[in-house]
Amino acid sequence: MSETPDSAVRTYIDTHRAAFLDDLAEWLRIPSVSAEPERAPEVRRSAEWLRDKLRETGFPVAEIWETAGAPTVFAEWPSEDAAAPTVLVYGHHDVQPAAREDGWHTDPFEPVISADGSRMTARGAADDKGQVFFHTLGVRAHLAATGRSTPAVHLKLLIEGEEESGSPHLRPLVEARAERLRADAVIVSDTGMWSETTPTVCTGMRGVADCEIELYGPDQDIHSGSFGGAVPNPATVAARLFAQMHDADERVTIPGFYDGIEELTDTERALIAELPFDESEWLRTARSYGTSGEAGYSTLERVWARPTAELNGIGGGYQGPGGKTIIPASAQLKISFRLVSGQDPYQVQAAVKDWVMARVPAGIRHDITFGAPTRPCLTPLDHPALQSVVRAMGRAFGQKVRYTREGGSGPAADLQDVLGAPVLFLGISVPSDGWHSVNEKIELDLLFKGVETTAYLWADLGSHWTPA
Amino acid sequence: MSETPDSAVRTYIDTHRAAFLDDLAEWLRIPSVSAEPERAPEVRRSAEWLRDKLRETGFPVAEIWETAGAPTVFAEWPSEDAAAPTVLVYGHHDVQPAAREDGWHTDPFEPVISADGSRMTARGAADDKGQVFFHTLGVRAHLAATGRSTPAVHLKLLIEGEEESGSPHLRPLVEARAERLRADAVIVSDTGMWSETTPTVCTGMRGVADCEIELYGPDQDIHSGSFGGAVPNPATVAARLFAQMHDADERVTIPGFYDGIEELTDTERALIAELPFDESEWLRTARSYGTSGEAGYSTLERVWARPTAELNGIGGGYQGPGGKTIIPASAQLKISFRLVSGQDPYQVQAAVKDWVMARVPAGIRHDITFGAPTRPCLTPLDHPALQSVVRAMGRAFGQKVRYTREGGSGPAADLQDVLGAPVLFLGISVPSDGWHSVNEKIELDLLFKGVETTAYLWADLGSHWTPA
Repeated sequence: MSETPDSAVRTYIDTHRAAFLDDLAEWLRIPSVSAEPERAPEVRRSAEWLRDKLRETGFPVAEIWETAGAPTVFAEWPSEDAAAPTVLVYGHHDVQPAAREDGWHTDPFEPVISADGSRMTARGAADDKGQVFFHTLGVRAHLAATGRSTPAVHLKLLIEGEEESGSPHLRPLVEARAERLRADAVIVSDTGMWSETTPTVCTGMRGVADCEIELYGPDQDIHSGSFGGAVPNPATVAARLFAQMHDADERVTIPGFYDGIEELTDTERALIAELPFDESEWLRTARSYGTSGEAGYSTLERVWARPTAELNGIGGGYQGPGGKTIIPASAQLKISFRLVSGQDPYQVQAAVKDWVMARVPAGIRHDITFGAPTRPCLTPLDHPALQSVVRAMGRAFGQKVRYTREGGSGPAADLQDVLGAPVLFLGISVPSDGWHSVNEKIELDLLFKGVETTAYLWADLGSHWTPA
Repeated sequence: MSETPDSAVRTYIDTHRAAFLDDLAEWLRIPSVSAEPERAPEVRRSAEWLRDKLRETGFPVAEIWETAGAPTVFAEWPSEDAAAPTVLVYGHHDVQPAAREDGWHTDPFEPVISADGSRMTARGAADDKGQVFFHTLGVRAHLAATGRSTPAVHLKLLIEGEEESGSPHLRPLVEARAERLRADAVIVSDTGMWSETTPTVCTGMRGVADCEIELYGPDQDIHSGSFGGAVPNPATVAARLFAQMHDADERVTIPGFYDGIEELTDTERALIAELPFDESEWLRTARSYGTSGEAGYSTLERVWARPTAELNGIGGGYQGPGGKTIIPASAQLKISFRLVSGQDPYQVQAAVKDWVMARVPAGIRHDITFGAPTRPCLTPLDHPALQSVVRAMGRAFGQKVRYTREGGSGPAADLQDVLGAPVLFLGISVPSDGWHSVNEKIELDLLFKGVETTAYLWADLGSHWTPA
């Protein structure tokens, strides 16, 4: 099977560009805000609109899958080549809340293309409708340029309706439908690139395990004059517990915490160091006044490739104006552990539990609870499917494609976990797109690079990858 | 001048017992709750009632002193012996809020004597009207038994109306009236004894310096996935700051914190050890599940005679239900330092400020503020006035009088501070009296022991003490 000629792909895309943008604008007009219960009908309308559009695109299967929450769209376009790899594309059709009065220059649900034709502004343009929608034109460009009647891969799409509400029903859905979702690779189209001028592919995300520790001292707040200095104070214990959780090198001190970690290789560190990283610019984005973290690692290595124990919240005793001379009855720590590939969230939970239990002093009682963890995911640099993505992006952008990771955690990990398939990230959004913010937009040049990338990708995967 | 014959004092008290209780009940019927603005007229009525009663008692001077808040009562009864010591009695005529529906068995402002005649129940019975009022009968018993027409000491009374609201105007009042309040000793009648069966005299109180530390990180809460592990977290800094404030022996690590402290002598430690202390009973009172504190000191030594750094409140980041993966923008510590004799609150503040400044890491900004401190006070065991109190109490109770201290801090320190006079504590209330609680009561036997003590005290001070 030969490579798709690039000119054929580009010609097809140019021919269908206007209609594609009209369609996307129509979808963006549906305010599918999953966080607002009164907009549940709009979320459903968005799912139905997408299902119909996927049928029109040519997907022989396009269905609404009901969940206990908002509807998910599933579509499937099998390849005529039975041995072709199966790829599952993940995205979402719900959007963040948005209102003109938040500071939008135009109606967030009335898409506007800028006067110079460079960008489309609307809630969901980048997160995530634009990045889901490029797959519709991409697969048709792939077929047109190759003369195929079916894609070179077995193509599946899973586009959920609750990502902006924390994907509460995604995992049960994936577990229940695992057979139909079976795939050799998952491609997440809900991320971004380093910048407009530096195309990148993300190779992994950190996982996360949330933990809450309640510490109980006296049965009620007691007078620190009458009793202070002679009974244990649960707020003090909270402060000491967390303070003991790192050493002077900012390494987590919990035994076993780093067990099993896939350490960064020299190659990976070199690839990260290649990125045009400007720390002062990054600090502006972080709205922070300094960097700090685990000794021996750069800022990007710290957020992408190192696990953390972060204090998300601490509370105990009097927090109002002025002072109150009490020994508080209780205190609380909320900690999230970001995890990297090789760490097992449940082993981390057990290690944390043992560590805390051994350190809570006599006279203080405690409870420790954990939320459902999200596993880390990381695709090896030499994975054939990842190499296909890099090649496809390189052809579309005409540039060297570099590698990033994500410090955050996402539902992709559930797909990896349940389906046992590696997760790849194909996103063309850039930091200036304003996800979750006002005046969200997508750069149209990049949007069509996304279309082009997928057109090359399916052909490349079909010819270069034979999953075991 | 001879000692007052005890039988004469007792006979006088017995003769006037019924009228005294009637008068006290009348005063207790005035709901002088300083914390409730709508009861300001009652607080004034209470002051006027007391002024009139003090005149009737024989005080040649009895005045209302206005403050920016509630009125204070001042009275003075000079001794005919010009060289006699001057004693200023401090107490308060305002009371804590109380309402039948809080769980009182009877109307809190309708005093009731129990069927066996052992106690009077009413808001303020012990805290502090009963303990102020015993001075009226005490001075008359003193005069009657000695045949004097003026007390053997220059007697002054300062009975404030805002103690239950934190004495916000006491210090300015004392500063403004320092000349008229001049005294060789201050006797505070607003404390208690160890127990019904163990009469004690309190020799000092700890001071207190409140401190609030605000720590600022990012300009807003930021995502702990995107940035966690690479920027400093102000909640982490808060926890670490407080955790560093003590060493493994629970000693405060701030350099200079212990400077100047009057260490407990072997005699004082032996006197504390003599008290019938039941640690499990004490823990029940503290509603705590264990003791802890500075190595090398007993529980009572820790709360009475050792300084502390107590965490009254800590807060930062998300404290609601569930989790939130943020690096918080700010965090806060509220710390109170209990101080013992020899420590200077302003030196402690300066030491804390320097210590904190040296420990807040780069990338975190901080503010540190201090409330107005209260100095510690401690009267030496061999002080002649203290020895008079002990002798007088011993005669009244017919028992050995032991020594306690108070772990808390009080307005007495302002009197000591401004007037330059030692503070003595003469209180006959017991822990079961229910200060600030429902069904507050006073034991009538102890109340009359208080009357008797003062009758002996003025005679004893007049004959045994010639202040320098």
